[in-house]
Amino acid sequence: MNASKLPHVVIVGGGFGGLTAAKELAHATARVTLVDRSNHHLFQPLLYQVAMAGLSPADIAVPIRSVLRHAENTSVLLADVTAADLERRRVQLEDGTALGYDYLIVAVGAKTNYFGHDEWSKWALGLKTIDDAVEIRRRVLLAFEAAEREDDPAVRRRLLTFVVIGGGPTGVEVAGALMELSRFVLADDFRRIRHERPRVVLVEMANRLLPGGFDETLATSAKAQLETLGVEVRLGSRVTGIDGRGVGLQDETLESTTVLWTAGVRAKSLTATLGAKTDRAGRVEVLGDCSIPGHPEAFVIGDAASFVPKGSTRPLPGVSPVAMQQARFVASLIAARLRGDTEPAEFAYFDKGIMATIGRSRAVAQTGKLRLSGLLAWLAWLLVHIWYLIGFRNRFIVLFNWAWNYVTYKRGARLITGERATSRALALAAQGSDVPATRS
Amino acid sequence: MNASKLPHVVIVGGGFGGLTAAKELAHATARVTLVDRSNHHLFQPLLYQVAMAGLSPADIAVPIRSVLRHAENTSVLLADVTAADLERRRVQLEDGTALGYDYLIVAVGAKTNYFGHDEWSKWALGLKTIDDAVEIRRRVLLAFEAAEREDDPAVRRRLLTFVVIGGGPTGVEVAGALMELSRFVLADDFRRIRHERPRVVLVEMANRLLPGGFDETLATSAKAQLETLGVEVRLGSRVTGIDGRGVGLQDETLESTTVLWTAGVRAKSLTATLGAKTDRAGRVEVLGDCSIPGHPEAFVIGDAASFVPKGSTRPLPGVSPVAMQQARFVASLIAARLRGDTEPAEFAYFDKGIMATIGRSRAVAQTGKLRLSGLLAWLAWLLVHIWYLIGFRNRFIVLFNWAWNYVTYKRGARLITGERATSRALALAAQGSDVPATRS
Repeated sequence: MNASKLPHVVIVGGGFGGLTAAKELAHATARVTLVDRSNHHLFQPLLYQVAMAGLSPADIAVPIRSVLRHAENTSVLLADVTAADLERRRVQLEDGTALGYDYLIVAVGAKTNYFGHDEWSKWALGLKTIDDAVEIRRRVLLAFEAAEREDDPAVRRRLLTFVVIGGGPTGVEVAGALMELSRFVLADDFRRIRHERPRVVLVEMANRLLPGGFDETLATSAKAQLETLGVEVRLGSRVTGIDGRGVGLQDETLESTTVLWTAGVRAKSLTATLGAKTDRAGRVEVLGDCSIPGHPEAFVIGDAASFVPKGSTRPLPGVSPVAMQQARFVASLIAARLRGDTEPAEFAYFDKGIMATIGRSRAVAQTGKLRLSGLLAWLAWLLVHIWYLIGFRNRFIVLFNWAWNYVTYKRGARLITGERATSRALALAAQGSDVPATRS
Repeated sequence: MNASKLPHVVIVGGGFGGLTAAKELAHATARVTLVDRSNHHLFQPLLYQVAMAGLSPADIAVPIRSVLRHAENTSVLLADVTAADLERRRVQLEDGTALGYDYLIVAVGAKTNYFGHDEWSKWALGLKTIDDAVEIRRRVLLAFEAAEREDDPAVRRRLLTFVVIGGGPTGVEVAGALMELSRFVLADDFRRIRHERPRVVLVEMANRLLPGGFDETLATSAKAQLETLGVEVRLGSRVTGIDGRGVGLQDETLESTTVLWTAGVRAKSLTATLGAKTDRAGRVEVLGDCSIPGHPEAFVIGDAASFVPKGSTRPLPGVSPVAMQQARFVASLIAARLRGDTEPAEFAYFDKGIMATIGRSRAVAQTGKLRLSGLLAWLAWLLVHIWYLIGFRNRFIVLFNWAWNYVTYKRGARLITGERATSRALALAAQGSDVPATRS
């Protein structure tokens, strides 16, 4: 059969969802094109480790092409999909060309959500991409360098205060790792500031940590574990303003030059071009088979989709297992349709549990009726992540790096790089006006 | 004794010279301040591996603070020294403050030299810093991505032609590694261009490779080894022009969108502020004890110095062993003077030999009367670099990464990152007008 006559499946996005779909379709009787605007797949659960200088970007990222090199029916295209035209069955690329499809899988993921306050993005750094993580690393390390040079104790205080906004899993992980980085690793290396106590403040709007999913008992445990580390936890605190000097809460101002934002995500702009109904976070409300209403050949999976299971009112959470299971479902549906077989009717999510780490050797985890916290939860977390890193090229190096850090209490990737690595950036950091160069 | 009354040694630069000097002075009766404008020490001999996506930046860089954390008399300052005032014995920092000294060691290294054609720096990328290496990696990987999307065979040809200017050790190493990356690693991953042959052209002005230091026989061997790999070597070729379309030689135009420049270095601008005599490359002409004439308390070492050994007319080469040996000499001289002991009179360089790799398993090396080429030279190169990586925090990871690449023929760090990672950058690459964002 002429390859160009085969049905064409276009997958937009090379994250957990898109990549899984491509792998599953590797032996389908179809041409597959995976389009992503970056050349690498990212192991997002460890991205905070890059931001905290524990791992290098390449430890948790792998070229999409490499992963799919043996999928002979698959092409990988580095391109930005700007819109999708469901009626004419094609997607628009940034260079003006279009790509026709017979089947479409939208798996573009999510981006940081500032809930209408995009002006805060200048000061409150999100953590979704490698560039985000490297920028956070640069800012955190520069804050210590600037503090070491600073004579004014008030400015030094501001430089050594880190605010993390959002008490979900990412916020908890970042706050814990940041406290450890500050206390154990950096404090030893700085002659002048080594006796000062860096502050890490975690701000959450709800009256508990880890809202949405985790048990209340684990939320209480997570708070206690964070406080043992030295993190200050502010619950029920609404952010009223953020600028270069710090964060305003209802009843308090936190003076800080380094603010991280993990308070929420929203769908990327492509979903808005589909002409389908979306929820408040911009996610496409899909049918039971993950397709877009009225378009049985077009699917949305993962963080870009709002999938409400039968009998539930809440959409599935934006976590990688959902994306991967939906990818497998949709791939098998498309493969069945191509073969003329009976299609699976409805996607059902199998929830294996959720977990969050709190620094080295602390965590919370729940699966089924089981609730874990502390060291045992952390070991479970480690096991699960080792397991999921299998198939990932860099798993040995990641483990090695971890082990190394654990034994030596050093950090593997404490690099300040980029055009604003020094001097002026340092002065700006002290003034609290170091605006990131690139925010998307 | 009051610490602030101790003599103050200021070291400018945290490369091989500056860092060695600081380590040697760790137990001297002096306060030591090491100033560098970046926070990391770089293992420069493997920088080309970062540019060729074989290693991550953090594999070959280590925070200067970490290295010196146990040197209690030493402070590390992240700052840019803009000038030195030898009469008033102080150095000027970029923020307007000054730092007084009793002894000064200038070890600022060198930067890429375009020999009066700074306008070429836009197109012909130098390789001296981590940012340089990451930019080269981005450009090389983007060229392949752009070629995969390109319909015009002429443009595709230009995208798949890489020109390396300068046939010294770095040029030879880069050309060999680039050919291997192109042939064995990338070519497999690209559906459309996998049957095209990427070209790597190495251009050298002299009539031989590796001029200045290496034996003629090894130069001939290096050329043969490169040609076996598939590199085209152009000897006796003078560059007449470089722009976004390629490189003009006297008798030929090489159409290429990716041009690398390894043709020479010159001293950094700080050396010009010393008021001392400099050579054509801006290096300070120092006395036999590495001091600046008329200033027995101020020394210049490494690439920033022009040191002509007694009985010779040629200055020592800009290689790390020279910098490290000079650092030890100057540190022992200062320590002796502080103790009131007899000072060593004159620095003498002990030449252990020189070597250059040509991709995986090929190299040339000479030491004393011994001349090696091919696999044996490569094993010698490997041994020496493993040896010198000892003391370097990342040695295990570096070795592991190497081993991994060697076994799997994959690349560890094939990431395209930064604001211009995709879309527009891709289009610009095809047009040959992708100007790097940051050149210093």
